[in-house]
Amino acid sequence: MIVQARGRAGRAYGYPVGVTFPVVGMVGGGQLARMTHEAGIPLGIRFKLLSDTPQDSAAQVANEVVVGDYRDLDTLRAFAQGCDVITFDHEHVPTEHLRALEADGIPVRPGPDALVHAQDKGVMRAKLMEIDVPCPRHRIVADPADVERFAAEGDGFPVVLKTVRGGYDGKGVWVVRDAAGARDAFRAGVPVLAEEKVDFVRELAANVVRSPHGQAVAYPVVESIQVDGVCDTVIAPAPGLSPELSAEAQRLALRVAQELGVVGHLAVELFETRDGRILVNELAMRPHNSGHWTQDGAVTSQFANHVRAVLDLPLGDPRPRARWTVMANVLGGDYPDMYSAYLHCMARDPGLKIHMYGKDVKPGRKVGHVNTYGDDLDDVRERAAHAAGYLRGTITE
Amino acid sequence: MIVQARGRAGRAYGYPVGVTFPVVGMVGGGQLARMTHEAGIPLGIRFKLLSDTPQDSAAQVANEVVVGDYRDLDTLRAFAQGCDVITFDHEHVPTEHLRALEADGIPVRPGPDALVHAQDKGVMRAKLMEIDVPCPRHRIVADPADVERFAAEGDGFPVVLKTVRGGYDGKGVWVVRDAAGARDAFRAGVPVLAEEKVDFVRELAANVVRSPHGQAVAYPVVESIQVDGVCDTVIAPAPGLSPELSAEAQRLALRVAQELGVVGHLAVELFETRDGRILVNELAMRPHNSGHWTQDGAVTSQFANHVRAVLDLPLGDPRPRARWTVMANVLGGDYPDMYSAYLHCMARDPGLKIHMYGKDVKPGRKVGHVNTYGDDLDDVRERAAHAAGYLRGTITE
Repeated sequence: MIVQARGRAGRAYGYPVGVTFPVVGMVGGGQLARMTHEAGIPLGIRFKLLSDTPQDSAAQVANEVVVGDYRDLDTLRAFAQGCDVITFDHEHVPTEHLRALEADGIPVRPGPDALVHAQDKGVMRAKLMEIDVPCPRHRIVADPADVERFAAEGDGFPVVLKTVRGGYDGKGVWVVRDAAGARDAFRAGVPVLAEEKVDFVRELAANVVRSPHGQAVAYPVVESIQVDGVCDTVIAPAPGLSPELSAEAQRLALRVAQELGVVGHLAVELFETRDGRILVNELAMRPHNSGHWTQDGAVTSQFANHVRAVLDLPLGDPRPRARWTVMANVLGGDYPDMYSAYLHCMARDPGLKIHMYGKDVKPGRKVGHVNTYGDDLDDVRERAAHAAGYLRGTITE
Repeated sequence: MIVQARGRAGRAYGYPVGVTFPVVGMVGGGQLARMTHEAGIPLGIRFKLLSDTPQDSAAQVANEVVVGDYRDLDTLRAFAQGCDVITFDHEHVPTEHLRALEADGIPVRPGPDALVHAQDKGVMRAKLMEIDVPCPRHRIVADPADVERFAAEGDGFPVVLKTVRGGYDGKGVWVVRDAAGARDAFRAGVPVLAEEKVDFVRELAANVVRSPHGQAVAYPVVESIQVDGVCDTVIAPAPGLSPELSAEAQRLALRVAQELGVVGHLAVELFETRDGRILVNELAMRPHNSGHWTQDGAVTSQFANHVRAVLDLPLGDPRPRARWTVMANVLGGDYPDMYSAYLHCMARDPGLKIHMYGKDVKPGRKVGHVNTYGDDLDDVRERAAHAAGYLRGTITE
């Protein structure tokens, strides 16, 4: 028998009697939403999606899908009706829209006051400086001549330029060697942040999850290996990282989460410098590529913990389940049929964990990732790299 | 851009270009379908569901849901269009309908020739005897007087009576102490199988997965603890089971899968007798309650391997990830709001893995399960029992 039941937030919907589990509304239909839905299924929660198209990665696998434009406030408001909380697959919802939803009484997690730091790199840098978090030298620059002055203030060129809003995966980022090279960054008319090009040994990520009542958990610090500005491989934990620097990175991420009022998953991308310091590169307030290893390598995945956090449930154990876990992104190659590559990959490695996003294959596009784990790091890395390369088509045996 | 793409089986559907992943059609919208969908998401496959209602457990979380009656051949035929393979959440689809789908050219996995052994206990017993698999003494009985004769042929009463079709979780099963007590079993007009009441030490389950090309994997043999005829707790691996008996049980299950032509997951429920033998109790050709522990306790879950098998993909590693994994079923109690119990359960045990089915809470109904794992069996059992009891409402602190 189906009757009208009442959700936690007192909203009526048609559901079996007694099923009073909350509704999590997620804005954005990408792979992060897809994997968040997957992680939410065991919790028995309802998952509602606002997706750009019915074919988006998450829309293919979820039941309650609203197709609409997240930039339109009326669409967002209609979507939020019947949701107990709103969270995000990406940072692109206009901050003022989030404030409007909050004014409507809808919990938005992370809230606009936190999320603005992941939306605007200028705001992020100003806040991190205010709370004494180590960052690369930086300032907002006005024009190419100002970039030249910024360079002269420090060790000179090269300088990294970033539009303060809208960049990701190397887009909206330029490494320039002189003032003339800086022109492109100013073409979009968006404020531009200049940063020193840090002489780093490697990139790390410190991922934490924080709930509204202030509980927080820290995942092991990972090493993130970029190729052409896109994350290629993540190794958990970061090999050879000193316990001191690891603890420092975790403490730093927990402090950023607290000071910025983050709710949900926070990824703090870090540079490990040649002289043994860590500097904050970027922040992401949502499940993040550097945390995909947790699906198969941690007791509780970043996706499950993100859901728990936005619902203000106690968080799950973030500890690793294996000595080493490696994640390798699967990028699109020239060959569109990745499914037929499963035969080789699965037969070669019965322990391989494939995570595909249901995305159209385009060269260079992230269409999935693989996780491997075990005791021997070289072996674990080789298995992940082989599978990712074979799926992409760059390895053919 | 969305265009008409072609699936593996050459059927056209609207999907992004190049996404040629197969469509798995599952008949039945229960929790097994829900968890199969969850396990299929990472593989990037499409999952299509034939569900009795739009509120069924799996229908709540899947995108492509057809609501219809699996007993109606036209409904099944329409559902099968666009599916690359048909598989099952339950054994109740009429065998002749499965043959009709096969005649239409739709791969049905497991196929009717295998599935009939899980549908009809008479057929199952006859086949197991034919291939020399040890079973309790049994025969089809005609009436209560015949039950008395069956008892007299062996050690007398009690005798177990089972309708050959339609029983599950203790339904359609009677333990009778005399001929008069046998009357109920004959009321449905379904043929009745009589079996000796085995003097067993405990119940075990040997779970295997087999693919059409003949690859098979065996999970560790588990102990299954029943309460009131319903599975209460599963311990993986079965504590204190001798390596010899464990290997014998695995070999037996692999042989049954091969001889019966099973494709997908096969659960072989076993009695371990007081004199150290194993006898087959029941067969299930689908993911099974005795394999739920694999979601958190094995490298590849039974659901993921069932999907891989029905698609004839290489199977995943069935090995355990922890020394001990315990599954405890969550039954409905008097208190319908299980969600609020999450606070206590999650705060008490950050490593607890909850799996809820989105089902209306009714006393005694399976509405979810929990998994725990670790090195200390007593601790792992206590954690699972506490969480399951607290969610049900029989433990209040």
